[in-house]
Amino acid sequence: MNKPLIHKPIKVEHSAFPGSKKVYAPGTLFPDIRVPFREIALHKSAKEPPLTVYDSSGPYTDMTFTPDIEKGLPRLREDWIRQRGDVENIEAREVKPEDNGNVSAGALAPQFPNLPNVMRATGNRSVTQYEYARAGIITAEMEYVAIRENLRRQELGQQLAETVRDGEDFGAEIPDYVTPEFVRSEIARGRAIIPANINHPEVEPMIIGRNFLVKINANIGNSAVTSSMEEEVEKMVWAIRWGADNVMDLSTGRNIHNIREWIIRNSPAPIGTVPIYQALEKVNGVAEDLTWEVYRDTLIEQAQQGVDYFTIHAGVRLAYVHLTAKRVTGIVSRGGSIMAKWCLAHHKENFLYTHFEEICDIMRAYDVSFSLGDGLRPGSIADANDRAQFAELETLGELTQIAWKKGCQVMIEGPGHVPMHKIKANMDKQLKTCGEAPFYTLGPLTTDIAPGYDHITSGIGAAMIGWFGTAMLCYVTPKEHLGLPNRDDVKTGVITYKIAAHAADLAKGHPGAQMWDDAMSRARFEFRWEDQFNLGLDPDTARAFHDETLPKEAHKTAHFCSMCGPKFCSMKISQEVRDFAAGMSDNEKADIERGMEDMSKKFKALGSEIDVPAE
Amino acid sequence: MNKPLIHKPIKVEHSAFPGSKKVYAPGTLFPDIRVPFREIALHKSAKEPPLTVYDSSGPYTDMTFTPDIEKGLPRLREDWIRQRGDVENIEAREVKPEDNGNVSAGALAPQFPNLPNVMRATGNRSVTQYEYARAGIITAEMEYVAIRENLRRQELGQQLAETVRDGEDFGAEIPDYVTPEFVRSEIARGRAIIPANINHPEVEPMIIGRNFLVKINANIGNSAVTSSMEEEVEKMVWAIRWGADNVMDLSTGRNIHNIREWIIRNSPAPIGTVPIYQALEKVNGVAEDLTWEVYRDTLIEQAQQGVDYFTIHAGVRLAYVHLTAKRVTGIVSRGGSIMAKWCLAHHKENFLYTHFEEICDIMRAYDVSFSLGDGLRPGSIADANDRAQFAELETLGELTQIAWKKGCQVMIEGPGHVPMHKIKANMDKQLKTCGEAPFYTLGPLTTDIAPGYDHITSGIGAAMIGWFGTAMLCYVTPKEHLGLPNRDDVKTGVITYKIAAHAADLAKGHPGAQMWDDAMSRARFEFRWEDQFNLGLDPDTARAFHDETLPKEAHKTAHFCSMCGPKFCSMKISQEVRDFAAGMSDNEKADIERGMEDMSKKFKALGSEIDVPAE
Repeated sequence: MNKPLIHKPIKVEHSAFPGSKKVYAPGTLFPDIRVPFREIALHKSAKEPPLTVYDSSGPYTDMTFTPDIEKGLPRLREDWIRQRGDVENIEAREVKPEDNGNVSAGALAPQFPNLPNVMRATGNRSVTQYEYARAGIITAEMEYVAIRENLRRQELGQQLAETVRDGEDFGAEIPDYVTPEFVRSEIARGRAIIPANINHPEVEPMIIGRNFLVKINANIGNSAVTSSMEEEVEKMVWAIRWGADNVMDLSTGRNIHNIREWIIRNSPAPIGTVPIYQALEKVNGVAEDLTWEVYRDTLIEQAQQGVDYFTIHAGVRLAYVHLTAKRVTGIVSRGGSIMAKWCLAHHKENFLYTHFEEICDIMRAYDVSFSLGDGLRPGSIADANDRAQFAELETLGELTQIAWKKGCQVMIEGPGHVPMHKIKANMDKQLKTCGEAPFYTLGPLTTDIAPGYDHITSGIGAAMIGWFGTAMLCYVTPKEHLGLPNRDDVKTGVITYKIAAHAADLAKGHPGAQMWDDAMSRARFEFRWEDQFNLGLDPDTARAFHDETLPKEAHKTAHFCSMCGPKFCSMKISQEVRDFAAGMSDNEKADIERGMEDMSKKFKALGSEIDVPAE
Repeated sequence: MNKPLIHKPIKVEHSAFPGSKKVYAPGTLFPDIRVPFREIALHKSAKEPPLTVYDSSGPYTDMTFTPDIEKGLPRLREDWIRQRGDVENIEAREVKPEDNGNVSAGALAPQFPNLPNVMRATGNRSVTQYEYARAGIITAEMEYVAIRENLRRQELGQQLAETVRDGEDFGAEIPDYVTPEFVRSEIARGRAIIPANINHPEVEPMIIGRNFLVKINANIGNSAVTSSMEEEVEKMVWAIRWGADNVMDLSTGRNIHNIREWIIRNSPAPIGTVPIYQALEKVNGVAEDLTWEVYRDTLIEQAQQGVDYFTIHAGVRLAYVHLTAKRVTGIVSRGGSIMAKWCLAHHKENFLYTHFEEICDIMRAYDVSFSLGDGLRPGSIADANDRAQFAELETLGELTQIAWKKGCQVMIEGPGHVPMHKIKANMDKQLKTCGEAPFYTLGPLTTDIAPGYDHITSGIGAAMIGWFGTAMLCYVTPKEHLGLPNRDDVKTGVITYKIAAHAADLAKGHPGAQMWDDAMSRARFEFRWEDQFNLGLDPDTARAFHDETLPKEAHKTAHFCSMCGPKFCSMKISQEVRDFAAGMSDNEKADIERGMEDMSKKFKALGSEIDVPAE
């Protein structure tokens, strides 16, 4: 039915980061696991070991690996999954023409040529990380993420004494080192999730929770108006290269099924979707025509493909819809507005709410995590923290309890558009209402006056809410509110959100977070330009900016840059100051201090003699 | 001595903002003053009056005005100044070869051809806004800024009831409307300044204080390595176009004197400098060779040209220098490192500290405001909030009292590099230590790992510290740490900081701040695309981003964009929801609420029957 041909060979970015190499750490409980890191070499004058940083980029930055997009990535988790003995191969749901929007043969995106067997839990079992954690089982995925979070600090001999822990964590419980048992207990308490569908064994496991490093999500996906399958696979590889921990495929046009297959088979990052988008395509875009049956079929279709988490707008209840009528911007979530329209048209409760337990049964059979959608999030500063928003949040808390009882992993989506002074209330209410399930927010945007710069308006809010406890930040690109992001926009959005996430890690006092900043600061002070570029989130841009005005190789060792020029470099003068101070005796230093005190007394006396004019 | 020729005609940007016109409001106490605003027209379907926004761009966005860079801007304040009867024309200090770095005739930047008379206070008088305010005098400048801050809300009939005042202002005292008397009292208390040198009568007065709109500063200036006079004038016009309220000329190369004259004569924004930079050029870059006499002569030179505020690093005391020896990045302020080096080399107290009262005497004779420099600000996350930084801040508090006694206007500079959880302590300590003198911070950068993106790392910190009470935010461009910003970098830095400042105004609950966001949100909900572009901080970029994927004129009225396409536009669906809900009777609404309660009870009962696996 589908053409097994592809239009042209797909080229994705495959290159190491400059000055960096990919390294892998083995497990202890599971010796065969290989946890990836990026190791950034420093100039020998630094007399420092290489810096190990978190690496979301997958094998695409490993030059010993040869990507083959038509084959897909190695299925590294397949043995782990099968060895647990609770899954079986099943006959996959047959792909239907409506899965790809009933496109004509000529317009059909190519089918992925190397389709895997589809797995499912045997019988009515729950095969979720939550279920294992509750049963006291530490999985390979759990050890993997524990190693990943620690950034090899222990192995590389970083002493706890070197760890800066002066952050304000607002009641989080961040350990000095993450153990597999800590991961298990956090998942069992519902405070963290590892999104990892058993049908996405290509995934490099990662954890989302308040007591772990703050993660970021990048949205990709075609729309009815623009973009192709090749572009979306390239965008996914591009997004994880720059730091996206998760990727959501928000495609809404045709060919949704086939495009998604290519993305999943080639993605080491968990993939999320909003299934209602595809369901709506199947009923030709008429929200009123949506049915539980169409939606259920879509969940199964996507769960079998390997989607790792579903945004489900089950909290948009019929009774909340009229609460949005007086808003400045109504309902701005696509899924939320679709469900609101359905509820009103049928004068019935949201079918995602009424069928929630059946949804749980599907999710647990594949370990698809819930991302409970905030369909009533505010779409403007004016609508922030209103009754509609918080009513839905309370319902999400109720649904969280049900999902946990069913053995599912859950995170909660949050806003949106919120001025700075109203951000913390969102976090506090979410923690309280949703039993500490991980919060996953879009921004929030802190002002609405800068279309074209909403990565920045939202990056401010994202950093703050990340500090307050949000576990994953969904990026916003410069094109938000204006159009579909291209490759450059994706990169800008991802880097902005890596900044926000890392700023949050620093402020929370994550052990080891500051190692990266300190390495950069030392490189800066010592004029190790190459190290400054290589240590940056975006070495290419840092180097290009520097070279715009000082392009010569000789300037890479210069003790200045074009910003201040050689005579005015404070870093250079400061080093001279340091050398000078190092030569002073203790007596000289004491002299200075005494002299200063005398001077200060004299000076204050002078000052107080001056006449003060009357106000 | 100087060639009175210019190399080529200087072209600066001279165009109105799209959809906007320049309007002027008159005074009441001073009927002749003309306070500029930008009025953004909205589509007639909006049924809304035009939106009035703050306008820093000067006459360069007024198409009834013809810029003539060789002539300079109109000297709008000259009469106000002369009518106060306390100044006199003096013979200007003669320009010396070393003022321009002893350049050869061929390399000399052209002299400004239309040099004005130089004014000075008669005798030993203080002609500062502070002095007038203390004497109970409301100046034209004070009424001007009062009108400017109110954004014509009262005249345009905006009711106080429409004013959103739900911010958290951390103890600020922001009035519903700013009166000239309020301005006077804030200046008299030292809580606000109007930087306005009597020799810069071209300035459109603006106010810097915690109880006024948050302002931003853009740095321009050549360095020894790159850029020319033409470029710097263009950058100044460009910076104020996008929203810079103040501009600092941080030139450090040759031709400093002549370049500055062109900038000041053409700038409607206050111009700040760091006089030690030029003083150092005069002693050939050898910090040890600096003397009070050279510095004093430089202050007079610049005060007579019309510089509105001086950064003076008088708080870098000899005894504090060794406190920086163990820092990761030592001293990163250029001025700070120069003074530290001088102190150590001579084993003497900082001459800016010992001569502080003489400096005050110069400042008050021209009304140059102090910007007390934070020469020991942290240059890395590792060094934030350390003893060196706070020791200097305490000294700045001491100097503030002296400057006030001498009748001078004062603001205080702040960091720098500070992780989020340490930002508020900076603001709190500054307020307490410096008697509520306005705080003026650089960023702060909230992480060090993203060279090339430091507008964003610092925009996060700037928004936060602005919220906490900082009165002016000094921008950081993408080139920070890498090179001298070009025109694009200046624009990106300014827009980023306008976002931070406005986000802060919203969070503080400035009356009227949210009007702008609300106008944008309504335009968004009603698919008024042209209004969305025109209302944005950067209409050009917003339009270009939109048109990348939907370039046709017809799409400017389309009820969707390429981000989601026509079927998935939540705003469109949401409007349908609203129409639907509007058609419901109250009985129907009540039915829905009742139905929901029943359903909820039933649902909860179901949920609690599910078995919970043991942890």
